[in-house]
Amino acid sequence: MNNSPIGVFDSGLGGLTVVKEIKKVLPDEKIIYLGDTARVPYGTRSSSTVIKFSLENTKFLVTKKVKCIVIACNTSSAWATDAIKNTTDIPILNVIDPAVDSAIEGNIRKIGIIATAGTVRSGVYQKKLKAKNSNIDVYAKACPLFVPLIEEGETKGKIIELVAKKYLSELKSKDIDALILGCTHYPIIDKVIGDEMGRNVRLINPAVGLAQELSKILDKSDLYAEKRFDDDEYYLTDDPTGFINVAEAYLEEDIDNLITKISLT
Amino acid sequence: MNNSPIGVFDSGLGGLTVVKEIKKVLPDEKIIYLGDTARVPYGTRSSSTVIKFSLENTKFLVTKKVKCIVIACNTSSAWATDAIKNTTDIPILNVIDPAVDSAIEGNIRKIGIIATAGTVRSGVYQKKLKAKNSNIDVYAKACPLFVPLIEEGETKGKIIELVAKKYLSELKSKDIDALILGCTHYPIIDKVIGDEMGRNVRLINPAVGLAQELSKILDKSDLYAEKRFDDDEYYLTDDPTGFINVAEAYLEEDIDNLITKISLT
Repeated sequence: MNNSPIGVFDSGLGGLTVVKEIKKVLPDEKIIYLGDTARVPYGTRSSSTVIKFSLENTKFLVTKKVKCIVIACNTSSAWATDAIKNTTDIPILNVIDPAVDSAIEGNIRKIGIIATAGTVRSGVYQKKLKAKNSNIDVYAKACPLFVPLIEEGETKGKIIELVAKKYLSELKSKDIDALILGCTHYPIIDKVIGDEMGRNVRLINPAVGLAQELSKILDKSDLYAEKRFDDDEYYLTDDPTGFINVAEAYLEEDIDNLITKISLT
Repeated sequence: MNNSPIGVFDSGLGGLTVVKEIKKVLPDEKIIYLGDTARVPYGTRSSSTVIKFSLENTKFLVTKKVKCIVIACNTSSAWATDAIKNTTDIPILNVIDPAVDSAIEGNIRKIGIIATAGTVRSGVYQKKLKAKNSNIDVYAKACPLFVPLIEEGETKGKIIELVAKKYLSELKSKDIDALILGCTHYPIIDKVIGDEMGRNVRLINPAVGLAQELSKILDKSDLYAEKRFDDDEYYLTDDPTGFINVAEAYLEEDIDNLITKISLT
């Protein structure tokens, strides 16, 4: 089991921000990544559709004999975590719980969350933050255009700045202490978001806490890989053309030989 | 057969611009609309994925006993028209052929096309225009952010204007006579596009020619409905929440009672 891979899935390429943090903390672990690029984005879809797609992704990763599964998509984490846990006994990690733990560290009074429409509508971040500390104020804002802009490589310049200004103006007026980047795509534009919010707002990338949590779980279950024994594998439900460029630039690694196109339905 | 409905499908709500034109020309015909909102957009996906999804849409409409099918999506029209024709004997109309016929009318020398990345990559518009008149120059430009902006209701104001400026600057410099709106979403922002291109450029909405072509085919096959005998039906693969508002505003009609959520897979 120790030499089994770690399964990671996302709707598209956003989950690579999670892969990057996992590889920093656990460089010897083999990762099997599934990007459901034929059906991206998830953030605008209904809960039942997101659950259906997430269960199909899980089923695929289970056939790859992974030792645990990371839900590297906030929308899937928000809607589908319980449904996924009901289908398998292996450890399931989502991106929301570690983000909540990171957010409430320190002397925090007001927390902002930016995420997809689906994640905001689920209310999961709001509920979990309040459960940990009922004295903090939580402000959530859906930013549905960030994902298509990032997927189109529109990650700097006037357009993304204008969209960020529009989405963040309300949160800016709330004088928040920290802002959770509640979609795994958003760390790719953390500079734009940070410039708009100003220096006093701490940005929280949920992937950082998730990688540490994953490390703890492998340690506790004695599931660490003995050594790096094989290359990572990337599976996509659509052609990899657009994915490869963004992925290789972001991961700073050649992965085109590691990608396979598959069909889930 | 005359009282059978007309089947129309699109990836999402863009096909409503086609429905609107059909209803102007053929108000007595019953329409069955299928919007594959669980998998929208098609324009960024590979040809094989678009063909797969389009065949699933066709299969559904055939079970509804439609007398003809309108492919109200340029990306599906570009990649999947032949594949769809191979599966059924009923008439299949796509949005591209009528647009090409409209575009070459008059004393035209230079034609621009704006469309999704998939439609531009297919080269179908370019090939068909050249086949009709080898003397005209054709310039195509992919505008992948228009669809998500329109689906988010970002149809006027600074952001859409800036995106339009970015996409259209090259075409403006070519001094074109006409511009084909080669995605069924784009007529929703025809004012923004027209303002950016200037008055001398004729904008072509393919749906207008398609509705006339459809009328001719029904006439030729003696398939006109005798009278309006039933309400239209709308089928969506995801929850209708976001769809209803945009659809009712655009069609200027109450349709919430006519919508059913279905699953194709």
